Order: sequence, then structure tokens, then C-alpha cells
Amino acid sequence: MPMGRTLVLSLAFMTLWIGLAVADWNILNQRKRNVFGASLKNYCESWRINVELNNIKEFDVVPQECIEYIGKYMTSTQYKADIERAIEESSLYLSSCCSLNGNGKDSWIFDVDDTLLSTVPYFKRHNFGGEKLNITSLEGWMREAKAPALEHTLRLFDEIKSRGIKIFLISSRRECLRDATVDNLIKVGYHGWTSLILRGLNDEYKQVHNYKAEARKQLVNEGNDIWGIVGDQWSSFDGSPSARRTFKLPNSLYYVS
Amino acid sequence: MPMGRTLVLSLAFMTLWIGLAVADWNILNQRKRNVFGASLKNYCESWRINVELNNIKEFDVVPQECIEYIGKYMTSTQYKADIERAIEESSLYLSSCCSLNGNGKDSWIFDVDDTLLSTVPYFKRHNFGGEKLNITSLEGWMREAKAPALEHTLRLFDEIKSRGIKIFLISSRRECLRDATVDNLIKVGYHGWTSLILRGLNDEYKQVHNYKAEARKQLVNEGNDIWGIVGDQWSSFDGSPSARRTFKLPNSLYYVS
Repeated sequence: MPMGRTLVLSLAFMTLWIGLAVADWNILNQRKRNVFGASLKNYCESWRINVELNNIKEFDVVPQECIEYIGKYMTSTQYKADIERAIEESSLYLSSCCSLNGNGKDSWIFDVDDTLLSTVPYFKRHNFGGEKLNITSLEGWMREAKAPALEHTLRLFDEIKSRGIKIFLISSRRECLRDATVDNLIKVGYHGWTSLILRGLNDEYKQVHNYKAEARKQLVNEGNDIWGIVGDQWSSFDGSPSARRTFKLPNSLYYVS
Repeated sequence: MPMGRTLVLSLAFMTLWIGLAVADWNILNQRKRNVFGASLKNYCESWRINVELNNIKEFDVVPQECIEYIGKYMTSTQYKADIERAIEESSLYLSSCCSLNGNGKDSWIFDVDDTLLSTVPYFKRHNFGGEKLNITSLEGWMREAKAPALEHTLRLFDEIKSRGIKIFLISSRRECLRDATVDNLIKVGYHGWTSLILRGLNDEYKQVHNYKAEARKQLVNEGNDIWGIVGDQWSSFDGSPSARRTFKLPNSLYYVS
């Protein structure tokens, strides 16, 4: 049956051809992703890492071409893992470092936004930092007191409290947001802080890093001994007095100077 | 020809089956990479970012399970892009910020290792920071004076020089490596610095961040005005006096305190 044999041979070749074509298509697809994906990904990752290294300062908005990349990171398990590791390092420091004075003056400082409470749900609806910050709109959202906790920071907060260390919250939120902020913090599980320091009318024209340094100066003048600061902005640590250790949480949605 | 027809059908099914099998194998492989790769990748990336954030300090070795990850990063286009962006930010600052004094006292400071010269070729042969640093072996390699330049830093170096700013190199390399260091720097294109400051016998028992702060103090006492520092370790910026701006290059191979 020569016709049968021809058919067998033809179909055998076809089988091989289809197999190779499918494999090729997969490799091609992979390569395309590398060629077209890699350089924009490289660019946006470099932007992000240089924000975290404090080399890129004072940015108003996330670069348009990186909005998607930053949005993905800020809602990723990687972001959560990065925060978790930073908090673990704080916890490790706490358990190994501190010969506490035990005189009621041992202290720790936390930022509020993107340290205790997450603003990611707000920025999810506002282009992940890709549009200029509208303070009125952001404060409106803060007034709703619906920001979720950063769960790892909440665990550290409780650990610090259980060691008898006083907790001070120094935030760049304005004084008029006090009720909503307290409400929100308590609702998600934070309680037992010593003082919540917010920006009063006199502080509104100061740069945040100066306002925060002055708040720390006040605490130190009152005899407090600051063991650590956890915050998501470099402006939470800048200036004098600082603390023995500072822990910077990643945040590439906005820049506070 | 019933046998012919059976053969046609059999081979048609085989074609389909092989095609699907190849596609499946590719998808499976992809998924395997995600399941097994993702959480270790998350862990190592968190380690790396927390080193860069200065949350993880004083590490002796790169964690064993992250040697491959760190090795990949330190030899990647991403590492090069991250360096390039940091250098671009320095350059941008330089062109926009500085009302130079023009009195011969305008100054800039660079680290040497992994700022001007790359030690990556050494660490490539020593497990990418996964084994405890052997100073004798590292200094032996430095004596060969074969470290390549970080090309983007070389460009910035020349730009700074062309603006009439004096360049000081402050390195934690020991004084006994002076000839090899000068040799290496010149060979790869650096020339025209004002002073190369290395660790003398008296400095060897100081922590590097103290030694570097003291070196800066000396420069400031001599009337120099430090516009910027570029370095790959946080210990290059710590302490007083600092500079108007500092630029941290990524490096997760080793930690110098």
C-alpha cells in the first residue's frame, strides 16, 4: 500500500513539525517578553530602588510609564515580604540590644501612614501615585477612618508595648484629623500608645523633617530615651536628635520631605 | 483502505497528543518555576532590599540560600541600571544645585571599592559574598590592580573634575595598598583627584564609619566645602560632618561598618 506508506510518512513529519512549532512558539513568546519587558522593567525597578536608597528625592508623582509597575509592587506579596523582613529586624534588635532603663522613659517612635495604617487602598483608586497628590481628597479618605493595619507592624507595636516601652506616634497628618486617626487606629487593633503627635497650625509651614526632628527634641528634653524609629519616609529619621536605630519601610507611592 | 484510514486517524491523534504534550510541558515548567522559585525569590529579594534600606546591618556573609540570587543580581543589567540611575541623579544634582564657591574649596568625595572600581570579579570567584571575607586573599587580589572601573562613576568623576571641583577619595583600603590602588585607578581611566585617603596604622582599630567621619572632619577643617559623597556603604555617610547630598550605590556582597 504505497499510498498508505506516504500518508504515514507525511503524518509523521506533520507530527514532528507541529511539536517543534509549539515548542518554538513558547520560546519565542518567552524571548519577546524578555526583549520588550526587560528594559521598561529595568527602568522602573531602578527608579524604585533609587527612591528607596534616598537618591531620588522630592518626586511629585510616580513616572507615568512606571505606574503599573509600582502599583504591582505595592500590592504584591514581595511588598508584604519586604515589610515583614524590616519588622523582623526591628524585633530582633529589640530582643538583643536594649538594656532598658526601666524608668518609664524607654521610648519608641512610629510613623502613622504606611507604617501603622496602609494608604494603599486610597492610591489604588488614584493611579498609584501617578497623579499629583490632592490633599483635600486624601484627607477626605483619612476622615472615613477605613485604612487597614499593616499587620506586621501591629505585631511589633504590641511586642514593644509588652516590654514596657512607651510608644509615640509622630505623624505629618494635621491636627484636624485627630479624631478620625484615633478612631481608625483603635478600630484596626492599635491601642495603648503614650502620645499621638500631629501637625498643629504652627507646624504646617515647616518641612516635615524639621517638624519631626523638633517633636523628637521635645521628647528627649522631657527625658525620654528613644530606642528606635519605624517609618516609611527618610524624613522620619533626618536631623537631630535621632534614635539608636531606625527602620525604613519601603514606599514608592509618594515622597514627604 | 480500512488499514490506511486507521493509520491516518491514529497519526492525527498522535499529532494532537504530541502538540498538547509539548504545550503542557512548557506550562508545567513555568508553574514549577513559580511555585518553587517564588518564595525563595521573595525571601532573597527581601533580604537584599533590607540591606539596601540599612535595616539589615553587620552581616558577615550572604545567606547561603541567597548566594545564587545575589550573584545573579550583582552581575545583571539591573545592577548596572541601578548604578546608572544613582549616578544620573548625582549628575542632575550637580548641574542644578550648586552655586560653587569657585575658591578652590568646592569638593566631592568618592569611595573606591564598588564605587570607582568593581570587586565583583573577585567575589565571582568567592561565592558572591557567601563565604566569610578573607582579607589576605582580597588584598592579594587588590595588589594585582586588575579591578575594572564602574563606567558610569568614571563619567561622573570626569564631569565633577571638569567643573573645577576637587575630588577626594576616602577608602577603607589600608595604606600598604596605596601603590596598587593608584596603579589600578589610573589604568582604568581615573586621574586628577586631589587626595587619596587610606587607612593608616592608627585607623586600623577604628570602625570604618568613624575613620571616614574623621577624614571628612579634617577636610572641612581645612576649609573644604563638601557638595556630595558617592559610596556603596552607609558607613561612608554616617556621622558628622556629612555632605549636602549623599548617593548610595547598591551593593549586597558585603557590609562595612
